[in-house]
Amino acid sequence: MSDNDNISFILQKVGVVSYDQIPIPEIHDDQVLIQVKKTGICGSDVHYLLHGRIGDFIVKSPMVLGHESSGVVSKVGSRVRSVKPGDRVAMEPGVFCRRCEACRTGRYNLCPNMTFAATPPHDGTLTRYYRLPEDLVYILPENLSLEDGAMMEPLSVGIHSVFTQAKLQPAQSILVFGCGPVGLLCMAVAKAIGASRIIAVDIVQSRLDFAEAYAATDVFKPPSPHDGESRTEFSQRSASLLKATLDVEDRGSKGIDVVIDASGAEESIQTGILVAKVGGTFVQVGMGHPEVVVPVTALLTKELVFKGSFRYGPGDYRLAIALAAQKKVDLRPLVTHRYSIKAPF
Amino acid sequence: MSDNDNISFILQKVGVVSYDQIPIPEIHDDQVLIQVKKTGICGSDVHYLLHGRIGDFIVKSPMVLGHESSGVVSKVGSRVRSVKPGDRVAMEPGVFCRRCEACRTGRYNLCPNMTFAATPPHDGTLTRYYRLPEDLVYILPENLSLEDGAMMEPLSVGIHSVFTQAKLQPAQSILVFGCGPVGLLCMAVAKAIGASRIIAVDIVQSRLDFAEAYAATDVFKPPSPHDGESRTEFSQRSASLLKATLDVEDRGSKGIDVVIDASGAEESIQTGILVAKVGGTFVQVGMGHPEVVVPVTALLTKELVFKGSFRYGPGDYRLAIALAAQKKVDLRPLVTHRYSIKAPF
Amino acid sequence: MSDNDNISFILQKVGVVSYDQIPIPEIHDDQVLIQVKKTGICGSDVHYLLHGRIGDFIVKSPMVLGHESSGVVSKVGSRVRSVKPGDRVAMEPGVFCRRCEACRTGRYNLCPNMTFAATPPHDGTLTRYYRLPEDLVYILPENLSLEDGAMMEPLSVGIHSVFTQAKLQPAQSILVFGCGPVGLLCMAVAKAIGASRIIAVDIVQSRLDFAEAYAATDVFKPPSPHDGESRTEFSQRSASLLKATLDVEDRGSKGIDVVIDASGAEESIQTGILVAKVGGTFVQVGMGHPEVVVPVTALLTKELVFKGSFRYGPGDYRLAIALAAQKKVDLRPLVTHRYSIKAPF
Amino acid sequence: MSDNDNISFILQKVGVVSYDQIPIPEIHDDQVLIQVKKTGICGSDVHYLLHGRIGDFIVKSPMVLGHESSGVVSKVGSRVRSVKPGDRVAMEPGVFCRRCEACRTGRYNLCPNMTFAATPPHDGTLTRYYRLPEDLVYILPENLSLEDGAMMEPLSVGIHSVFTQAKLQPAQSILVFGCGPVGLLCMAVAKAIGASRIIAVDIVQSRLDFAEAYAATDVFKPPSPHDGESRTEFSQRSASLLKATLDVEDRGSKGIDVVIDASGAEESIQTGILVAKVGGTFVQVGMGHPEVVVPVTALLTKELVFKGSFRYGPGDYRLAIALAAQKKVDLRPLVTHRYSIKAPF
Repeated sequence: MSDNDNISFILQKVGVVSYDQIPIPEIHDDQVLIQVKKTGICGSDVHYLLHGRIGDFIVKSPMVLGHESSGVVSKVGSRVRSVKPGDRVAMEPGVFCRRCEACRTGRYNLCPNMTFAATPPHDGTLTRYYRLPEDLVYILPENLSLEDGAMMEPLSVGIHSVFTQAKLQPAQSILVFGCGPVGLLCMAVAKAIGASRIIAVDIVQSRLDFAEAYAATDVFKPPSPHDGESRTEFSQRSASLLKATLDVEDRGSKGIDVVIDASGAEESIQTGILVAKVGGTFVQVGMGHPEVVVPVTALLTKELVFKGSFRYGPGDYRLAIALAAQKKVDLRPLVTHRYSIKAPF
Repeated sequence: MSDNDNISFILQKVGVVSYDQIPIPEIHDDQVLIQVKKTGICGSDVHYLLHGRIGDFIVKSPMVLGHESSGVVSKVGSRVRSVKPGDRVAMEPGVFCRRCEACRTGRYNLCPNMTFAATPPHDGTLTRYYRLPEDLVYILPENLSLEDGAMMEPLSVGIHSVFTQAKLQPAQSILVFGCGPVGLLCMAVAKAIGASRIIAVDIVQSRLDFAEAYAATDVFKPPSPHDGESRTEFSQRSASLLKATLDVEDRGSKGIDVVIDASGAEESIQTGILVAKVGGTFVQVGMGHPEVVVPVTALLTKELVFKGSFRYGPGDYRLAIALAAQKKVDLRPLVTHRYSIKAPF
Repeated sequence: MSDNDNISFILQKVGVVSYDQIPIPEIHDDQVLIQVKKTGICGSDVHYLLHGRIGDFIVKSPMVLGHESSGVVSKVGSRVRSVKPGDRVAMEPGVFCRRCEACRTGRYNLCPNMTFAATPPHDGTLTRYYRLPEDLVYILPENLSLEDGAMMEPLSVGIHSVFTQAKLQPAQSILVFGCGPVGLLCMAVAKAIGASRIIAVDIVQSRLDFAEAYAATDVFKPPSPHDGESRTEFSQRSASLLKATLDVEDRGSKGIDVVIDASGAEESIQTGILVAKVGGTFVQVGMGHPEVVVPVTALLTKELVFKGSFRYGPGDYRLAIALAAQKKVDLRPLVTHRYSIKAPF
Repeated sequence: MSDNDNISFILQKVGVVSYDQIPIPEIHDDQVLIQVKKTGICGSDVHYLLHGRIGDFIVKSPMVLGHESSGVVSKVGSRVRSVKPGDRVAMEPGVFCRRCEACRTGRYNLCPNMTFAATPPHDGTLTRYYRLPEDLVYILPENLSLEDGAMMEPLSVGIHSVFTQAKLQPAQSILVFGCGPVGLLCMAVAKAIGASRIIAVDIVQSRLDFAEAYAATDVFKPPSPHDGESRTEFSQRSASLLKATLDVEDRGSKGIDVVIDASGAEESIQTGILVAKVGGTFVQVGMGHPEVVVPVTALLTKELVFKGSFRYGPGDYRLAIALAAQKKVDLRPLVTHRYSIKAPF
């Protein structure tokens, strides 16, 4: 590739992508130019490709995809001190405004002025050269590969859910609905923190098998719905079955301290509230139907805390790198396919 | 009344009550016998009278009603030090086990072994003499009446919701759905804490008028539903109208930091989540339909904290008494009728 | 004054000040130029004048003094939205880097790259025109004067100590050592929060009288030291006397939940730890001798939390303005003298 | 031994011990009688033997020593459900009142009415049969020995310091002064939680060697004091040397998040405050001289949190057992000598 090569993977419109050159970004004093080396493909990239929108975020003009990336520092601004050209780095892809109430109070993931890679209208990281402020660029320890580096992004999603929002503690128990990448990384984080029990729930047996080999201590496959059974009846039956099968109780050492929903399914949310321990915590990280039926009286009388988890904030990337470098989280089994940016064409 | 008089107001079965004598309780070393003087009638008393059950709590045998009470200490056990006969006291009506995980970790309202007055099968306080452990009996300051004392119970419900669970801070804003006793007391607590804005929502104008005269800074009456409009469509329209009418925004100084639902209505929960500030807190204290449709994606992307509030726990009664004694909460307007325990017959 | 007038009050070297013109600052897109109207004189200004240094901060070249200021917006950068020329504003005088760990986690007062007005080598606000980023400029409500606005700075110090660090709650008790401006403002904040008891301690009776008239519910003047008594013996005697005189106990409703030391005196710290409630909080805001003898075993067995309080952070200025605008804090009695910037010469 | 054998190891007076029979305790409905099997000897046992007092706790009449124990359930009260005769259990040796403010708010270690084994005037556990309430008796998992069970007590001290009070998080760094049993167990807990760096400090090289082999990642031996150097000068020099030697900084990833003092030495406290990270936490668990010189200005400007840690509270024993059962804490290296209760005579 030439010095001016900045070939990028661009979503032109729904279902149409192209490889095109775009200008190499200029950097300010406090910015870093990174040569992107590895990028994971997120469900959101696929969603934008197939549907052109996620909720209120609508692709109205061509946009470079990708936001789970690592690379090598190519150039640094004059005031940058913490990295230098040649450093291998993980890239945090959301640039926040630093001035709003959310940014000032340590919750920058809620910044309304966020520029997030591959969230319209902002270009993503499936490009040769990408620009970030110094403090969103994290040097990779020697024992982490660039591929590991790209996975710091989804791992940070798991850390934000399980550690930052749910505040899982060592020797607590956790149940995770959904054994996709986010669910699996939530389990991996729970294992790294020292959860006493990690229950994986999914409707696909092969995914449960993977979860069990990867991080779960127990798995549960919900029953099939009965004819004529309402969804809430089904969830109650499923919750009862889960409790009976896995010796789960409402409180005490057999209770489930933390429930994470990484599935977005209504049945998961309902079942999760019914099986959570009195006084426990439920964190919603999976997006599904925007409105779901929730057993709110159960939530009330148990005094559950039900929280959303959105992207990641201060400290999440650092903890992701630390847990990976300590080999407390194993990322390799989650990488299933590898492509060159030029390969498919 | 004679020394042996312990006339009590007893729910015999659905719709049937009687005045009967029951034995005066014996007290242990660490217990206090109280001559009950004032008792508020809670919605739950009426509910048991009319329906014989609340959720899983079913009246199967005759039960004395009442749990919002104050009285005068009649007798104390040998180890009791903090009160003496003749003291005017507020009575906290839930005796917890002190041994379970909830009790040991400072969340005794979640104790599974709770003996709560007038929750079946336990007798309530609409009786002459009632027995409590020393630490659930609170001396009333001189400037509080016995009538005030009986109101420490519902006030503690408001404190648990607004202060303990929602953690409302001075100069924050709050919105309360429902202008019944619990909703009004939530507003009173918010005012005492120093909320900058207290928005009352109800569908009955006279209740809004009362709320505004009592503690609210703003009121909102939701629109009438349109023909063919779904409940979630209605809630979205109601939320938009509320924001436009009251100059409410999603964040910043015009955001609503805390939303309390004291109505139990599905529309309240939906509207509340839609109008709450990004990063805000929603507390459910009103019980309604056990399952409701919740806009969970909005909750997730705003990273709201949605919590239940159940009865009251450590410190709530003390704070109730302190706020009332400081005259930061005005209880008088909430007392509407007065009856003698012998009057109706 | 002409359009180019930027007369400033400059500390030339120890004991030598002058009025001189300095250039009017240029502003960036996100900055605001303020015409300074009122400035309080802080103890630190006087300290730099008399000693030329505070700890490691040494005045090595001429520096404009002053950092407790309010003014009127003169000019705004192109991206500024929240204020416009003519707005009356309070000025937060510490510009943080927004990029370090402290800034990102919501603790910007600990930013190592802070540019703080009148902390060497940075010029202060005793000048005509001062430049700040938009988010450090706070519009004053109509019922606050520019003089009130200048006092938002020391009031924020009190809020940071009492509310943010000590986390004082309504109906808790507080004891404040030192009845200078910071101590008095700590009491004012405690009163605004709804403290049940506010004990002021000072060795000067007239200051105690002022404190009692202003915000304290109780005052205590420590005894005179005995001949041959060590300082720790004195503190023990002083603590015993305080507890006996004011009916203070180690725990329960007669305990002191929060102790603030705004005096910096060793005896205050010692006495404070001895009188604080078991499980209570001690916050050090006054600077005195860098090393003091602390009764650490008492601190340990009581499991006290001993915290420093340094300047102010996210939310402190907003709360200061809100409490002042709600008239929960009365600032007028604290303004004792008024000077024109041109007057003394 | 016969059915009535309750031979006990009794401190008669300073320096005088005896083996004598005492009555086997009667149990109430909610109590458990345990046949004690293993007991660790705590420094406090030795201290009472040699000095007859610790602070205000004075041995005035004969007292059975010992409080770090495990055993086998011998008999249970009629209401006991969680254990049965024959169960192997760890014994939590402090019986709290369950009624005071501390007990009710989840801080029972601060209960003023505590009955603690071998704290005068209460008999300890170096006896055949000891009585405890059901909820202070913890079943040992199969993979923990009775010897492990006895070590749950000092391990809980470490958990209370490092986890409950200091709130150490995964990938944070910690420094521990003192490599005695408590210091070593603090390090073990830090390792179990996933600390990124564990620095052990002691003045004895062999103890540092042990710490490094056991749990520390780094060790530091303070320098020898210079002639004429004050203690605070020494501590400053020691702090500088530590920072230079171990590449420690005041903030960022090279900062020390948590400092634990398990030595009680003045130099440790001084050095610890000087090396702790800005915004960090210092926990004092070691008792030494009741008054020490503390660099309080450094504490203030860094906004350190300085906390005491006293015994252990809710959840600490459960976490101790869980971490030991998960083999995250290795207790064997800490058992150095074994005696039979009859052996020495």
